[in-house]
Amino acid sequence: MILLLGASGYIGGAFARELQRRKSAFQPLSRKEVDYSRFEVLLEYLKRHQPEFLVNAAGFTGKPNVDACEIARADTLVGNALLPQTIAHACAVCGIPWGHVSSGCVFSGAKVTQNEQTRAEKDLTRPDLRNLVDQSPGAIHGFTETDPPNFTFRDLPCSFYSGTKALGEEAIAGVGQSYIWRLRIPFDEYDNARNYLSKVQRYAKVYENVNSISHRSDFARACLDLWECRAPFGIYNVTNPGFVTTRQVVGLVEKILKPAKRFEFWQNDTEFYTKAAKTPRSNCVLDVSKLLATGVKIRPVLLAIEDSLRNWRPE
Amino acid sequence: MILLLGASGYIGGAFARELQRRKSAFQPLSRKEVDYSRFEVLLEYLKRHQPEFLVNAAGFTGKPNVDACEIARADTLVGNALLPQTIAHACAVCGIPWGHVSSGCVFSGAKVTQNEQTRAEKDLTRPDLRNLVDQSPGAIHGFTETDPPNFTFRDLPCSFYSGTKALGEEAIAGVGQSYIWRLRIPFDEYDNARNYLSKVQRYAKVYENVNSISHRSDFARACLDLWECRAPFGIYNVTNPGFVTTRQVVGLVEKILKPAKRFEFWQNDTEFYTKAAKTPRSNCVLDVSKLLATGVKIRPVLLAIEDSLRNWRPE
Repeated sequence: MILLLGASGYIGGAFARELQRRKSAFQPLSRKEVDYSRFEVLLEYLKRHQPEFLVNAAGFTGKPNVDACEIARADTLVGNALLPQTIAHACAVCGIPWGHVSSGCVFSGAKVTQNEQTRAEKDLTRPDLRNLVDQSPGAIHGFTETDPPNFTFRDLPCSFYSGTKALGEEAIAGVGQSYIWRLRIPFDEYDNARNYLSKVQRYAKVYENVNSISHRSDFARACLDLWECRAPFGIYNVTNPGFVTTRQVVGLVEKILKPAKRFEFWQNDTEFYTKAAKTPRSNCVLDVSKLLATGVKIRPVLLAIEDSLRNWRPE
Repeated sequence: MILLLGASGYIGGAFARELQRRKSAFQPLSRKEVDYSRFEVLLEYLKRHQPEFLVNAAGFTGKPNVDACEIARADTLVGNALLPQTIAHACAVCGIPWGHVSSGCVFSGAKVTQNEQTRAEKDLTRPDLRNLVDQSPGAIHGFTETDPPNFTFRDLPCSFYSGTKALGEEAIAGVGQSYIWRLRIPFDEYDNARNYLSKVQRYAKVYENVNSISHRSDFARACLDLWECRAPFGIYNVTNPGFVTTRQVVGLVEKILKPAKRFEFWQNDTEFYTKAAKTPRSNCVLDVSKLLATGVKIRPVLLAIEDSLRNWRPE
């Protein structure tokens, strides 16, 4: 049996559906039933039920966006750093392998090749890099699992949310047997406040940037595939291969959904951060070679976006 | 055998000396010998050595002061929230009781009786309360262990340091068998950068406020006494009974040490926070009735300060 924490959440729901589709025996567990944030309660549950694998899709994301995490600091830390550590400890004691939904937002920017040199750039909205993204996309490389996260409490500035997700990764790394699955900006065909394709359509103005992003059920599928094929434990970036600019996404929305609305963009970072956002945003490109090398399949990002928009289901 | 974590620190050193004085068998453990911040490493060590009790005096305090914790956020969180949780889990698995050095700085202010009403006041430097402190000290009551901390990530503003200490308390409460010992502003007769009586003498200007404070070896003694007399586990405020204003401390320094220097005070909070401090400071009064009710003895604060100054040992 697979134990699923956070099944009622946006990402947990995708795991639940994927497990149903596979006809895998699984048990969704809510904190109301069993307060798994309490170490001894979780330990007792694991000892009694002996799941073969545990998925932690619980965590604290700010609503409506990460700015809320700057205020709800305790809940953000408890949900994203202390809870994963508790699960790691309990699973280690019981010898249960598990997977943790982390986030690619522990990074900002990309690795950029310019003048034959490759270096990490934390901000791709800088005009010279902006041009590179559009004109020489081959010069933009994703961060790999061996790159140290650069949008964390150890590498300020970061958002409070990102800081806690990075700490969560640190807290469970090397404890027992775990996967750390890095999700980035979930999207799919179901219109929803958490869906990136919905968000883009609802923003008063759009923030132009560059990102690797994760189709929600592709993500759940790839994560479970890693476990099914017994890929080595450790960190995996789990986004659809490639990256997109917000302009590309808006272009596809306009082409496929043909909305009446005309999209406007924030002029620059200064305007965005003055008028729309409080805390710095992670925008980043991730490399998924490690995932693909295991044999796990996942669609290229543009294909996944086009497919989602062609099958768009309004809320 | 008592296992002592953080023995090389300012407070850990006091525990080591007190354990020596008592001729108690104890083992100081440094992270260099055994990285006890790693759950499985600590668990293995505890299983092998089966200490009867563990003291955690390790933690992250900013140097030269808490402002440093605003920058070193990851280390502050790891040392003060994630580490205590790791220890709590490992001790719970092994059934080992333990004590954690927490901090009274999860509070700010005091409970104040005015016009027959008692309420928590977060800032005692407000002029009307300031007068009350001097003229009706009986109107000032300390926070007890059942009062919810009010200088935390759940009750902003707080310092990053205080936020992490409060989270640490939350992370271990209700797990296994533990004491949470709240220290406040350590001092004693040994001139030292961490000694409050040294700090007061070295500040360019002094910040006038009201505090309960802890004589360092009185603290270690009271903590160990709690365990020796098998007091119930839980939170204990461990300060010398009473409270002092910075002016009282300066007055005693002038009277007893007769320094050449003339003390100057910051005019008000605004000047202090503009010129000397970055993050808000906890200044608070704690109630130690719970500690005293167990039969553990600890000297009144003015006595402990006078005694320290009369036995002053320059560095």
